[in-house]
This record gives sequence, C-alpha cells and structure tokens, in this order.
Amino acid sequence: MIKASGERTIADLSIEELKTAEGTVTTHGVVYNVRDMGDFAFIILRKIGGLIQCFYEKTGSEEEKEFLRDEASVRVTGQIRKEERAVNGVEIAVEKVELLGKPKEELPLSINKYRLNIALENELGLRPVTLRNEQRRNVFKLQSALVEAFREYLGKNGFTEIMTPKIVASGAEGGANIFKLDYFGKKAYLAQSPQFYKQMLIPVYERVFEIAPVFRAEKHDTTRHLNEYIGVDFEMGFINSFYDVINMETGMIKYAMEFLKEKYPDVIKKLGIELPVVKDIPCVTFKDAKEMVAEKYNRKIKDPYDLEPEEERLIGELFKEDYDSDFVFVTHYPIKKRPFYAMDDPENEKYTLSFDLLFRGLEVTTGGQRIHDYDTQVKKMIFKGLYPEDFESYLMLHKYGCPPHGGLGMGLERFVMKLIDEKNIRATSMFPRDTTRLNP
Amino acid sequence: MIKASGERTIADLSIEELKTAEGTVTTHGVVYNVRDMGDFAFIILRKIGGLIQCFYEKTGSEEEKEFLRDEASVRVTGQIRKEERAVNGVEIAVEKVELLGKPKEELPLSINKYRLNIALENELGLRPVTLRNEQRRNVFKLQSALVEAFREYLGKNGFTEIMTPKIVASGAEGGANIFKLDYFGKKAYLAQSPQFYKQMLIPVYERVFEIAPVFRAEKHDTTRHLNEYIGVDFEMGFINSFYDVINMETGMIKYAMEFLKEKYPDVIKKLGIELPVVKDIPCVTFKDAKEMVAEKYNRKIKDPYDLEPEEERLIGELFKEDYDSDFVFVTHYPIKKRPFYAMDDPENEKYTLSFDLLFRGLEVTTGGQRIHDYDTQVKKMIFKGLYPEDFESYLMLHKYGCPPHGGLGMGLERFVMKLIDEKNIRATSMFPRDTTRLNP
Repeated sequence: MIKASGERTIADLSIEELKTAEGTVTTHGVVYNVRDMGDFAFIILRKIGGLIQCFYEKTGSEEEKEFLRDEASVRVTGQIRKEERAVNGVEIAVEKVELLGKPKEELPLSINKYRLNIALENELGLRPVTLRNEQRRNVFKLQSALVEAFREYLGKNGFTEIMTPKIVASGAEGGANIFKLDYFGKKAYLAQSPQFYKQMLIPVYERVFEIAPVFRAEKHDTTRHLNEYIGVDFEMGFINSFYDVINMETGMIKYAMEFLKEKYPDVIKKLGIELPVVKDIPCVTFKDAKEMVAEKYNRKIKDPYDLEPEEERLIGELFKEDYDSDFVFVTHYPIKKRPFYAMDDPENEKYTLSFDLLFRGLEVTTGGQRIHDYDTQVKKMIFKGLYPEDFESYLMLHKYGCPPHGGLGMGLERFVMKLIDEKNIRATSMFPRDTTRLNP
Repeated sequence: MIKASGERTIADLSIEELKTAEGTVTTHGVVYNVRDMGDFAFIILRKIGGLIQCFYEKTGSEEEKEFLRDEASVRVTGQIRKEERAVNGVEIAVEKVELLGKPKEELPLSINKYRLNIALENELGLRPVTLRNEQRRNVFKLQSALVEAFREYLGKNGFTEIMTPKIVASGAEGGANIFKLDYFGKKAYLAQSPQFYKQMLIPVYERVFEIAPVFRAEKHDTTRHLNEYIGVDFEMGFINSFYDVINMETGMIKYAMEFLKEKYPDVIKKLGIELPVVKDIPCVTFKDAKEMVAEKYNRKIKDPYDLEPEEERLIGELFKEDYDSDFVFVTHYPIKKRPFYAMDDPENEKYTLSFDLLFRGLEVTTGGQRIHDYDTQVKKMIFKGLYPEDFESYLMLHKYGCPPHGGLGMGLERFVMKLIDEKNIRATSMFPRDTTRLNP
C-alpha cells in the first residue's frame, strides 16, 4: 500500500538551490523566452520566484522545435555553472530536455518584454496570458506580500483572524450599492463589509481582523472603483479614542513597508517603485483640510459636507509639499457622510469621530470609533431613518455589553495602486469586476 | 498638529505582561464572571488570549453594581500579586475600577460555565452572545490557528497566495448547486470554488493557494454541509502524479498539527481534544476501499460508482482499526463523479487520477491531477456535455501552454469539526449559512 509521508517528492531544484548547486542538476520551468543564436539558444525558464537561464546546443531535430518555444513546459538536466551575465548568476548547460506541456497555439501577444505593450482595456480579457509577464507577476506578488505583512503585524498585536459570511440578510453600509441574490426563496445580499461581524466579535476577542472579498454594486465606472475588492478590515476594543485606531494603522503601514524592503527587495526593485518612507502621519480635520486646500490652491468650497476626488488629490499634494508626507489622516467627517454606527463627536454635533486615510491623494481607508452604547445606537438608527428591529442580532452587541471600540477598512487594490503608481485600479486586480466585466 | 507615530498608545497591560508585572498595574477587560463572597468579590476579566482574576473589596455603593455584573467593560488599577489558585497565576487587588461599557440587559443565558447549556439550534441565533463563552472562543481560535499554520506551510513550500473573484460568469464545479445573482442586468454566479483561477495561475506562479469563502447552493440539510464555507485551496505545477499533491497535503497536515501543539497548547488543552498523530497516510483506491468495507463489515455494494456517507465512515473506521490512521486517501474516483477538468486514468478508462482525503471517516478534501493538454480538455468537455466555447478564458490556460498540475480543496469547517469531534458542522462556523439560516 502506498503511504504518503509528507516528505518532498519533486526532486527538481528551485532557483535558490540552483544558485549554490554544483555538477549535474535537474530543474523545471515554463519557457519564458528563447534567444536563438543559430547553433545554440538561450532558453529562459520562468520558475517560482524568478527566471533561470539555460544554454542549449541545437541539434536541428523536429523534437527540438517543440520546446524551443514560448510557454512550453520543460524539465531540463545539465551542468550548472556560474554566469555573471545571466539572471540569478548561474546558467545550466543543457544535456537533456523533457517536454512536459506544450501550447496549442502561439501567444496572442509577446509577454516576455518587461513592459507589456497593450492597453489595459484589451489586456484584461487576456489576463490568463498576460499575468505570465514578469512585471504582472511582480504586481500580484507585491499584493500577496502586503497581505502577509498586514497579517503578521496584526497577529503580533493580539488580533484574531476571523472569517465571516459574505451572504447576509442586510447591508452594513446602507445605500443602494448592494448586490441582491435569491437565497432559497429568501432575499439575501452580498456583504458590503464585515462591519457587523467585526463589531460583534469585539467582546469575544477584543481585537479582530479579516482580509476577504467585499462587494459593492457601485454603478459608476471610475478608475478607482471595483465592484468586488479585497477589504483589509480590523476592529479593536478598549480604545481611548479613534486615534488609537489611526495609530494602529500607522504602525501597520510602517511595518509593511519595512517588511517589503526586507523580504521582497527583488520585487520592489523590478517594479521600479519607490516605497513611501512612512514617518509620523499628520492628522487634519475634514474642515481644516478643506480650508487649507481652498486657500493654497485658491479654490471655492462648493460643498462643505463632502470631499470631491479632486480635493482629496489636492490634500495629498499639499501634505506632500508642506509636510513631506505621502499619507495624511483626514478626521472628523460630517455625520451626513458616515454610516449609522459611527460615533458622533461630542464636541461638534455635525461631525463624527471618524477618519479617512489618504495615500498620495487617494482615500485608501475609512475608519473611526463606533457607537458602543445601546440607547445611543438605537437613537442614531432612528435619526438615520432606519428601523432598529431590522438589526436585532447586531444590536445584541450593544444590548449585552461591549467596550468602546473602533476600526477601519482598507481597500487592498487602492493601496497597491498608489504604491506602484498605477492610474487605473483594474490593473491591480488579477481578474477585476466592474459594471461590464465578469470574465475571465 | 496631531501626528500618529505607530507606537503603542493603549498602555493597559496584556495577560503576558501581567504575569511578570510588579506593583501597581492597570488593565482592562470584559467581566466574564463575578463570584460574590459577601464583603468582597472575585471579578474574572475576559481579555485577549485568556482570563485574569481581580480581587475586589466591596463598598456597597450604587456605582459598584454597574461593574459587578457580567459583560460590563472595565479598566481596573491595583496591586498585582502571585496567586496560584487564580487562572494565569496572578491576581489584581483592585484599587480603582472605571466602567467603560455597560450592558443594557442581562444575558439571555449564562455563558461563563465552560460548557454552554443550550441546543445548537437555539444557540446559533444567539451567537453574538454565545461566542463570548470560553469554549466557543477556543473553537474559533483553533480555526484561525489552523489557517495560520496552513499558510505558513504553503509559503515555505513556494506557494503564492492569490485572491480571485467570487462573482463569476460560470460555475467551475457544474451541477445545480450554484447561487445566481443579477449583475447589472447580466446573469452571474457565486464561485463554487476558485478552480479555474487556480489553474490559470499555474503557469504564472507554479504553486498557488487561496483560503477564502466558497458558495454551494446545496438544497439538502445535513450535519456536514454548509452553503457558505471556507475553502482551503491549493494548486501546484510540474507534478509527476497526483501523489505529489497527496504528499503536499500530508506535509501540510503534519505541519499544522505540530504548529498547534507548539503555538496553541492552551487552546488544545482547554478544548480537551486529542490531536491526531499524523504518521504516513495510507492511500487506497476507491474500488479497493469499497471492497474492503464490504468484506469487513459484511455489506453489499449497492452503487459501485459512488461512496455513501456510511461507507466513508466505515472506511475511516477500518483504517483506524487496521492501520491505526485517522486519515486515509481514497484514490481513483470514477469519471462519473468527477468534474470535467479531472484527468482520466490512462490505465483504467472508468476512473480518474483523483482522490479524497477522509479524516476520521469524513471527506474533508477533494483533489487530483487536472488535464493540461488543450485537445484532451476540449474532448472531455464535449464528453461531459459541455460547450468548450463557454469556457474561452479558462481554455487559454491549455491553449497557451501549461505544465502537468494538480491540486485540492479542503473544507476548513469539516476539518475543524473532526478535529474537535463536533457532530454538526454548524458548530464550527461562527455564523453558519444553511438553507434556512441567513442571520446573524
């Protein structure tokens, strides 16, 4: 009887192993590029974590045409040798090639130049192909690295990871931007955020986080909205004020930037991006931010209770110029613009104890202190035109007691977008969902 | 201007800090239990990672009634002292109590006994309350710890974490058990698995994983089905056979059990569970397994192409008794029972190169080798009654080349269920979704 031991069964060497190997080696990869030099060819293999160069002496056989070809999957055996001009500093002098997978057709576009030459609109339908490009690979490696860093930081700070339902009986964020579905004859929705659940779990674990898809049926087509995106959500109890939440996020971002620098230097370098140096992040009130921008850029304030995207951009510009910061927390948003669970500012009845984080002029996070007292929450629901009886299980949180708490939700794709200086958020989702795009 | 530094702003001590602190300390927590002894009371606080005991001399004040009460949120200051009889070995002799959050009503049931005295059916509607119970807290701590272990293992083995869309244009697993939704006037579905995406990303990263919600519109109400659950999915390229996948999973489970033992001994101990000792895991073919069970338990084989839940249970029992293993891989499932992407067994046309993992008699994982050749995949789709033109973007994977690959999907809740010996899978989801349950 066969028994699985859990020991390594695929003997082919990794890039790290190849770098220090000697003598005969066997490895595998997908052919990323073939540089045909006449009598011989350089085959560049795409592998986990990078590329490796093979030197192949041509024989002119029919068989050889099958693997001297982009996107063929091969196993190669040969002598490893130092080669400073090759990527990763080594090269395999090939003695044997085994063809493991062969493409049916030629690629619809060349993907082995670092920069892809295709408009995003045309690319997205071809993502199963274009993601094989090195730059694209790095974009989503960066995304996964960020998530790894956020989780590590939150874990170190006592947060428990939670997994909450995405099919829900009611929306947490209100408004019309919610997807409906039929749930065994009942009306159900896709979660706009894990807000209710995060809060319900405050008396359980005190600090919780979730990194998971959220769904917003936004009808407008912009360069900064997706209809499904990854929400980085955390919530923490026993805060003294929402500045504790702001401070936790500041720590998380600082940690993540150091983490990327230390653990993914190649990805950062290849992407050619400048990581923001996160110093202490300035906090400015919504009202002050609007006035500062109006004054500095000589603009009129049209709507005192909302920030236009252009104003956000200018706040970002101002804080970069005058305070040398890529980040700025805008605090105390108007009650009108915040959901029913936001705590009002006791010092100014028009505003809430809430904030957004702007990163290079784009809102990447929304957060704040939540109402924890039962009567206050019920009153605010009624003020917002909601029926408390519709929120029975959510209100158990308040009814049976909970500490002061607050939290935030960050849009992962937005954060990555500003980090790599992309203009369109679709570029930072492998398979983006917008009002017209459901495929691939 | 306020600036956020990312340094700790909440000074209250954690349990770890209290254990070694001296003199006056301040900490916070939710009152989990009050043992009133007349002139004084023991207040047990629920905190991140455990409980802490406070010794409080009563004054008889009105104020005191507000915090000598389950589920009040408090900050206490006092002298820390060793107390061997107290949980965590220390006790705070309270000098000052600050009430931070007060319940509006008494709890609908007592939650501070280790075992809750309530039927699951009644409990689920009260989860915002019952999850505050220590045992419940440990169940979901175990869940998050498992996920942490799986991710760590997969990361060490070169897997890249991916985040793929849950709103999709077509189901990956076929059948009727798929939720439909209206997507801006178009028909869309909730992903039954990340199968297509995992495979598309094989030529990109070679090894990928995703731990995320999956949605199954199963109409039957059983103790082992949820309509939304957490799928632990991985997919790996350049396999020699599906035994490489089996072997990777074996390694992952071994790693996770060691991880739990080392990092979460308290959770394991409190849950009173016996972690399985994972030795090498036996693999048995579907056909052999059926015959072994028929012989040993003197049963007739009714359907040679399917396993009944009772047969799965008996396979588990047999392998526990005869091979001393809590796990068994059942391999080579019939073509009928496997989806169109499963690779057929070249040695027996009725079967596929696939497997299930049974854990203590329950299927917790389904996996196998996938078809990587374009023509073979198209042919199999047609054989299965599907239209290849409906799978254009998925088939780009095969058309433009990919290596031999395989992978699996594990149901996280099922794994936890067997680990903690729960009879109903609903107990292992914080907020389960079944055919009648959408709330909380």
